[in-house]
Amino acid sequence: MRQSKLFMPTLKEAPADAVAESHKLMLRGGYVRQVTAGVYAYLPLGYRALSKAEQIMREEMAKINVPEMAMPNLLPATLWEESGRWQKYGPEMFKLKDRHGRQSLLGPTHEETFTDIVAKDLKSYKQMPIALFQIQSKFRDENRPRFGLLRSREFIMLDAYSFAATKEQLDQQFDDEKKAFTAAFERCGLKVTPVIADSGTMGGKNSTEFQAPAAIGEDTIATNETGTYSANLEMACSIDTFKQEKEEPGQLAEVATPEQESIADLVKFLNIPATRIVKSVLYVANEKENILVLIRGDKEVNEVKLKHLLDVDSLRIATDEELANITGVGKGSVGPLKADWADKVVADNTVKNLYNVVVGANKSGYQIKNVNLNRDFTPDLFGDIRVANEGEPDPIDHLPLKFTTTIEVGHIFKLGTYYTKAMGANFLDQNGKSQPVIMGSYGIGVTRVLSAVIEQHLTPNGIAWPKEIAPFDLHIVQMKMKDDDQTSLAQKLEEKYSAKYDVLYDDRNERAGVKFADADLLGAPVRVTVGKKASEGVVEVKKPTEDKATEMTLSELDDFINKELR
Amino acid sequence: MRQSKLFMPTLKEAPADAVAESHKLMLRGGYVRQVTAGVYAYLPLGYRALSKAEQIMREEMAKINVPEMAMPNLLPATLWEESGRWQKYGPEMFKLKDRHGRQSLLGPTHEETFTDIVAKDLKSYKQMPIALFQIQSKFRDENRPRFGLLRSREFIMLDAYSFAATKEQLDQQFDDEKKAFTAAFERCGLKVTPVIADSGTMGGKNSTEFQAPAAIGEDTIATNETGTYSANLEMACSIDTFKQEKEEPGQLAEVATPEQESIADLVKFLNIPATRIVKSVLYVANEKENILVLIRGDKEVNEVKLKHLLDVDSLRIATDEELANITGVGKGSVGPLKADWADKVVADNTVKNLYNVVVGANKSGYQIKNVNLNRDFTPDLFGDIRVANEGEPDPIDHLPLKFTTTIEVGHIFKLGTYYTKAMGANFLDQNGKSQPVIMGSYGIGVTRVLSAVIEQHLTPNGIAWPKEIAPFDLHIVQMKMKDDDQTSLAQKLEEKYSAKYDVLYDDRNERAGVKFADADLLGAPVRVTVGKKASEGVVEVKKPTEDKATEMTLSELDDFINKELR
Repeated sequence: MRQSKLFMPTLKEAPADAVAESHKLMLRGGYVRQVTAGVYAYLPLGYRALSKAEQIMREEMAKINVPEMAMPNLLPATLWEESGRWQKYGPEMFKLKDRHGRQSLLGPTHEETFTDIVAKDLKSYKQMPIALFQIQSKFRDENRPRFGLLRSREFIMLDAYSFAATKEQLDQQFDDEKKAFTAAFERCGLKVTPVIADSGTMGGKNSTEFQAPAAIGEDTIATNETGTYSANLEMACSIDTFKQEKEEPGQLAEVATPEQESIADLVKFLNIPATRIVKSVLYVANEKENILVLIRGDKEVNEVKLKHLLDVDSLRIATDEELANITGVGKGSVGPLKADWADKVVADNTVKNLYNVVVGANKSGYQIKNVNLNRDFTPDLFGDIRVANEGEPDPIDHLPLKFTTTIEVGHIFKLGTYYTKAMGANFLDQNGKSQPVIMGSYGIGVTRVLSAVIEQHLTPNGIAWPKEIAPFDLHIVQMKMKDDDQTSLAQKLEEKYSAKYDVLYDDRNERAGVKFADADLLGAPVRVTVGKKASEGVVEVKKPTEDKATEMTLSELDDFINKELR
Repeated sequence: MRQSKLFMPTLKEAPADAVAESHKLMLRGGYVRQVTAGVYAYLPLGYRALSKAEQIMREEMAKINVPEMAMPNLLPATLWEESGRWQKYGPEMFKLKDRHGRQSLLGPTHEETFTDIVAKDLKSYKQMPIALFQIQSKFRDENRPRFGLLRSREFIMLDAYSFAATKEQLDQQFDDEKKAFTAAFERCGLKVTPVIADSGTMGGKNSTEFQAPAAIGEDTIATNETGTYSANLEMACSIDTFKQEKEEPGQLAEVATPEQESIADLVKFLNIPATRIVKSVLYVANEKENILVLIRGDKEVNEVKLKHLLDVDSLRIATDEELANITGVGKGSVGPLKADWADKVVADNTVKNLYNVVVGANKSGYQIKNVNLNRDFTPDLFGDIRVANEGEPDPIDHLPLKFTTTIEVGHIFKLGTYYTKAMGANFLDQNGKSQPVIMGSYGIGVTRVLSAVIEQHLTPNGIAWPKEIAPFDLHIVQMKMKDDDQTSLAQKLEEKYSAKYDVLYDDRNERAGVKFADADLLGAPVRVTVGKKASEGVVEVKKPTEDKATEMTLSELDDFINKELR
C-alpha cells in the first residue's frame, strides 16, 4: 500500500483531554478519531490492527471447533423481558423505539439472543455440546466514557456462547475457551493474567477474567509470584497473619469518645491498636434488609465478597441519614450489642479469636470496651468478607500477594441455566426428560485488546507493534521522492516484499523529519529507509525498539526481514 | 468442520410468511433466523457465505487502492443537522437519546460521518485523490420489511467514499469503483446490469445502479439487447414512435363528458384514440407550487424524471380535495386553457406535434376539442417526463427496450460538493484558493447480494452455490456412522482436502434421507457420499446442478475436485 493513498492524519500533540497513553498514541498516529463522546471511527491503521487481532481470534476459535455467526445489534425488548434484564440492566442500555412504537435496544451483550435463537432450537442432548461465536459492535451507554477505546460506548467484542447437556460438557468448553483466549492474547503480543473474578450481573457463579497489566488499568489483581494464585482484588482472599494473645474477658464498660468517628480517631483517642477495635458498618441489602457488618478495625469490607456471602441482588452502604433513622445513633457509635434493628449481623473471620475489644455502644459518642465474642454478641453468619492486603500470604501456597493495576480484556462465565430456565430453553436428555440447556459465555473486548497492546508496547516516540497485529509488517520510507535511484529501489523493495508481507511505502512528498515522526507512530516491526546510498544498493534498517538504524546491503536486508518477520 | 459442531437447523417447510425464494431457502437451510421484524441473525452457513462475499469485495477494493476503515453505528444528530438530513431523511431513520438526553441516530448511510472525519481533515489538494471503504451494519426503519434480507431493517453494506480536488479525479474514482463493483459481483456469481439511476435523496446528479435480474425484484430496468443502453425504469428514456398526420386547426368547442374521468373513459365516450387527448395532471412541488403537467393520453407521467426537470426537493400528485380547491373543477375536467391557478405548466415532449386534441375544459364535466399547442396554450417548459414503454426504441441505438424485474445490489454516486459545502469541508487548491472537497459515494448491499445470488442459483431442492462464495467447497456425507470403513475413508478425505478447501463432513448420526435433504440445502459445489463401497475405495460424487451422482475411485475423485474447485 502507498502511504499517499492511506488516510493517516497524524498530530504533533495529542488533544489535552486524552489521558491514557494508548489513547494519545491512537489519536496522534491517526489510528482513530472520536465521532462523539465515547464513540470512535477506526481509521485505516487502527482498522488494520483490529482486523489482525480479530483474525487471530478467529483462528483460535477454529482450533477449538467453534463456528462463527453474527447476531444483529438491534434487539427486541421482549427477549430481555423474558430474562428479566430489561429492568435490571440499568442506564447503560441504549433503548429506542421503532416507527411503530415497538421498544428495542442496542445489544450490550447477547446471552438473551443466543438463548432464543440457538438454545431454544436444541431439542436433544444429541445436538450438544455446541458452541458459537461472533465478533461485532456492542453498545453500552457509559456514564463517563474515558481513556479512548478502553471505556467507550460503542466497542468491538468477541462473544462466544456454549450449549451443553451436562456440567462436564460445560467444564470442557470452558477449558477450551480459556485455552483459546490465552493463545489469542499471546499471539496478539499481550501479557495477560487469568484471575478469579466476580460474575456481576451476568448470572452464574464461576468466572475467570483475563487481566492485562497496564498503568492506566481500572482493575487491580492480586497474584503470588509463582502464579499459582491470582484473583481480581474484588474476589481475592489472603491469610490473616495477626494473632492476639489470649486474655481473660474483662468487664464491659462504656467509654465516652466524643466526635471520634473513624477507626483512626479511636486508635489515637483511646491509644489502642486498630486490631483491638471491631468496626461496625451498616449495609442495606435488596433495598430492604438492614445488615450489620463487623470486621476487625485494621481491615476493610469487600462489598463483592459480602454480596456473594449474602447471596443478594443489590447491596449498598447505608447513608448517614438511614443510619441515624435505623440505629438512633450517629456514625462511629454503632455496635453489635443489643442491635435489634439489624435484620442480620454478619462478621468477617477477623472478628474471631479477639479478646476484650472495643465496639460502638449504640449510644451517640460512646464505645464499649472489654467486649467478647459469644459472651456479649453472636453474629448470624461468619465469612471472608474483607479486602485482601498486599503482602499477605495467598490462600494456596502462602506466598506474599502482589497487587498490579490491570485492564480487563476478557471474561469467561459458566452461566449454567440462568438464562435457559428463565427463557424456557429445554432439551430432552438421554432418559427423555426435559432439562434446561447449560450455557457458558465467553467474551473478549477486542478494542480493549488493541488499547492494552499499545499500553504494553509504547516507545518514547511511538510504538513497537507486536509482529502479528502490526498494521504493516514492513515500512519502506523513501527520503527524496525526486531521486530516481531512490524511487526505483523503493519500488523494487515494495514489489518484492508485498508478495509475502504487508508493506507500506511512504511515497509522500514530505520532509524527512515528518516521515520519520510518522514512522515512529506507525511502529512497523521493520523500517527500511531508502536514502542517499540507494544507488549503491544500501539502505538503513531500524526496529522500533532500537534508537539507531543499521546500514545493510540488499542481501543483508533480505536475511534480516525473513528472520524478523517470519 | 464437522457438521455435528455446526449449528444448521434445517426445516422441512419454510414458514408461511416467507414469500421470496431466497428467504425460504435461507430459513429452510438454517442460514438465517429472524430475531425481530426485518432483523436477522446470520447463522454459521449464512455467515460463511457473507464473509466470502465480503472477502471478494475487500480484494477488489484493494486492487483499486482503497483502504478499509470503520465508522461507528451510533452517530450524533449534530452531524446530520449540519448536512440538513436530520429533518429530511424521514421516518426510516432510527433515532434515540443517550442517558444524558443527547439526540443520536443509527447510521443508515455515512456521507456525513465521512465528510466530518475525513473530508474536513484534507487540507491540501496534495492529499487527494483518496478513497476509503467500510463493510458494516446499517440501520433503516423500513415501514414494511419483507423478502428476508432483501428489505430488512438492519443489513450489511459496503460503503466507499472518495475525496477529490478536481472533477477529473472524481470521474476516475467513479470509474475505478464501477470496475471494482462489477468484478466483485461477477466473482460472487451474480449476474448484474449497471443502469442509469436516480440519485434520490443522496444528493449529486450522476449515479449508476447495479441491478441483478430476479423474479422477486422490486425494481424494473429497461435495456436494449446489445447492452448499449440500460436504465432504471425511473430514469429510462425511449423514442416516441407515434406520429400524427398534420391537420388544419379546427375551431375550439366544448364537449359535455359527464362522469368521464379517465383517459379510457374519454376514449370510449368520444370514440377517439388516446393519442388525440392531452392529459392534464396537477402536482404539488415543494408543498407550495401548483404544477400542471401535460402528457399525451396514451402515456404516463414519470415522477422521478419530472422531479429532475423541475429541480425540486419534493413532488407529489395533488389530492382530489386540493385539485377541487385549486382549479374549482373535478377530476377529469382540468386542462391547460386559462389555467391561471397553475404556477407552472410543464409538458412532456409527446405533447408537441399534435393537432386538434381534446383537453379538459376547466369546467366540471366538460372537455374542449380542436385544441392546438401555441394557438390555444403554451407550456412554460417542455421535457421528457414520461414513463418509457417496453418495445419502444432506446435513445442510443434505437433498439427495442426490454423490461426486466431486478434487485438493486449496488449504487454509485457522484455526490460532488453536496455535503462538503453544507458541512464546510474545504481544501486549498494549487492556487492556494479554498474549495469544497468533491465527493463520491459507492455502496453495495452485501446482504442483498447474498439474497440475489440465491435467487439466481436455486435448484429444485436447494441451491447450487457459485464456487467463490459457497459456505463450503466440499461436502463429505457419510452414510452410516457406525461403519468403520466409511468413517475411516470419510476422515481421510476430510483431512486430505481440508488443507486446500473448505470442507464440511457430515458426521451426524442421522438417516440418509435427512443427510441428503440437508446437503441439497447446503449446496456445496461438490458433494462426496461415502457409502457402501467405501471399503473398495469408491465414492459417489454429485454437483448440485446434477440429478444423479457418479461413482468414482479416489484418484478420479481427486482429479474431479481439483478441476471443479481450482
